[in-house]
Amino acid sequence: MTDRIFNFSAGPAVLPESVLVRAQEALWSLGDSGIGVLEHSHRGRAFTAVIERAEALCRELAGIPDEYHVLFLQGGASTQFFMVPMNFLGSEQTADYLDTGVWSQKAIAEAERFGEVAIAFTGKPDGYTHVPRAGEVHLSLSLASAPEYVHYTSNNTIYGTQFAAPPEVPAGVPLICDASSDIFSRPLDMSKHQLVYAGAQKNLGPAGLTLVIIDRALVDAGARDLPAMLQYRTHADKGSCYNTPPTFAVYVLSEVLAWIREFGGLEAMAEHNRDKARVIYDFLDQSELFHALAAADSRSHMNVCFRCVKPELEPVFVAQAEARGMSGLAGHRSAGGLRASIYNAFPRAGCEALVAFMKEFEREHA
Amino acid sequence: MTDRIFNFSAGPAVLPESVLVRAQEALWSLGDSGIGVLEHSHRGRAFTAVIERAEALCRELAGIPDEYHVLFLQGGASTQFFMVPMNFLGSEQTADYLDTGVWSQKAIAEAERFGEVAIAFTGKPDGYTHVPRAGEVHLSLSLASAPEYVHYTSNNTIYGTQFAAPPEVPAGVPLICDASSDIFSRPLDMSKHQLVYAGAQKNLGPAGLTLVIIDRALVDAGARDLPAMLQYRTHADKGSCYNTPPTFAVYVLSEVLAWIREFGGLEAMAEHNRDKARVIYDFLDQSELFHALAAADSRSHMNVCFRCVKPELEPVFVAQAEARGMSGLAGHRSAGGLRASIYNAFPRAGCEALVAFMKEFEREHA
Repeated sequence: MTDRIFNFSAGPAVLPESVLVRAQEALWSLGDSGIGVLEHSHRGRAFTAVIERAEALCRELAGIPDEYHVLFLQGGASTQFFMVPMNFLGSEQTADYLDTGVWSQKAIAEAERFGEVAIAFTGKPDGYTHVPRAGEVHLSLSLASAPEYVHYTSNNTIYGTQFAAPPEVPAGVPLICDASSDIFSRPLDMSKHQLVYAGAQKNLGPAGLTLVIIDRALVDAGARDLPAMLQYRTHADKGSCYNTPPTFAVYVLSEVLAWIREFGGLEAMAEHNRDKARVIYDFLDQSELFHALAAADSRSHMNVCFRCVKPELEPVFVAQAEARGMSGLAGHRSAGGLRASIYNAFPRAGCEALVAFMKEFEREHA
Repeated sequence: MTDRIFNFSAGPAVLPESVLVRAQEALWSLGDSGIGVLEHSHRGRAFTAVIERAEALCRELAGIPDEYHVLFLQGGASTQFFMVPMNFLGSEQTADYLDTGVWSQKAIAEAERFGEVAIAFTGKPDGYTHVPRAGEVHLSLSLASAPEYVHYTSNNTIYGTQFAAPPEVPAGVPLICDASSDIFSRPLDMSKHQLVYAGAQKNLGPAGLTLVIIDRALVDAGARDLPAMLQYRTHADKGSCYNTPPTFAVYVLSEVLAWIREFGGLEAMAEHNRDKARVIYDFLDQSELFHALAAADSRSHMNVCFRCVKPELEPVFVAQAEARGMSGLAGHRSAGGLRASIYNAFPRAGCEALVAFMKEFEREHA
């Protein structure tokens, strides 16, 4: 079997090896059915058990109450960027968006097609190096009206920033979160959210699956004059099987969730992720060659973005790391620099290997 | 290793075993990359090679010229049902639809949200037992105007009917085909179509991937005041990587296409499918207990729909077949009866096993 390397990819990203081994078996035959997981009807008993298990594990891990639907959709966060305003923002209405980088801006651009967007915070003047601090969020609240909803991006893969806690919004204003890059990396407080969505390809499983956790009342409030596939109620009413769902991705998700449970759940996962991130940030904070990009109070535990004080060394660093079995350390093409993405399934040993190499590289180039 | 059984599922459906074995290896490491196919960045070299190979094999197998884009999208045919009229049908315009069953009707229902729909043919009075014959298609052509496009469903999984050839339309009227259930089961004449779409989960690979083959001129003609994800040009401009595509599904598709090429291409596949279907239809045509549902001139080579003259025996037949390792023989829940789906990867031996069992069942129950 080919040796696996340390995969720092920002997404699609590393998955637990035990899950991959189980998926290999399931490709040939799901359980003892004699039919592979790719080949089972989405209406049959075998797949129904898979999708029910996936939903039950979501609910158990994150403590999602019955007032929320758990949906398995397609199209990624990019589809949620427009489905949210298409369903919940009329042309005469306002929604508040917190702009913490490229992904927030894409969500904002889609919302502007449907109604008014108020920017309740933007990190742009500071190069998106921090998420809002106390007093920095200014919602478009007035005596006359409140925004239809408030939208934020909980973790920003490109800038390596992350909200430590959801922004505060007044009771009655729905809070909507794009959690694509930190879903289930830590406990999720659904009582503060009406809608949380996440592309699966970082912490949950294969690309091509979007997890949507949505308040039943919000589903009911969605627009009705839309194509069936673009109404949340269509999917809620049919248990995510209005049309054929991405069955293999749902299967892998269920196995990843079982692995998280086995690991100890979301609290244990959060501690594990804090600890892994600390290995790298602690080194960066004392390095003379490398430095972290995000402000100390906004640092992501998922994506550690950093730079070399001699930028011309960055491609050298990436290439030498690759040669040592550490892949995917270049920053996003829009931001440059360096980035270590260390999602749930990324091992602590990989963080230690990265720091060991950074030390060696620093000795060589100081 | 668990023994595999004969899987007559209408979709997701049986895949070639050689493809499953390759996919098992790729889950652990794609080639010698040390990173599994689920875990590779969609922007990296390894996946870029996969998606380029998938497109090249599509073009080679079906002889798709450069004037067409080959796109890998999400959301299934159900998403194409509304994307087509959303892009190409204005509120004052007319599109012609051929109604050959449930899936056509779903496409029609979505089109009616956007403009006028003219039903150029309906098989409803005859219980959808046949596709249009010569003279049965009445397009809404006039001296003043032509329809924006004509839409048809090339194979009807629920009724077991299939067009032997695309319907004739006048030059200049775009012909759009939902080929979800017979794509690449036989040669595809793109010169007669401006847009062909297909969910992957029958003949191409995993659920969660939609193949779209579309004329560049049609892409350019699409509406521009739409969310980015709902414009074909977005995906065409970005090589299907505007957002993260369903990478594993694209990989499996590429392996299925390589398997088709190895098999001898689409002509050889068509002959193989004709031959498999003949095994079952020949038996049905002389049986006193079972009979085919579709008219002889409209029979599908993908889905053989049949009934028992004693309907009370149908569930008995399904259960006994299941016990003998033949799964998925119940008809669609909306139509009842019996159905053998025998897509590309379904083996001739499975058709023979089914007929042998039908003979035995007939002797017992005649």
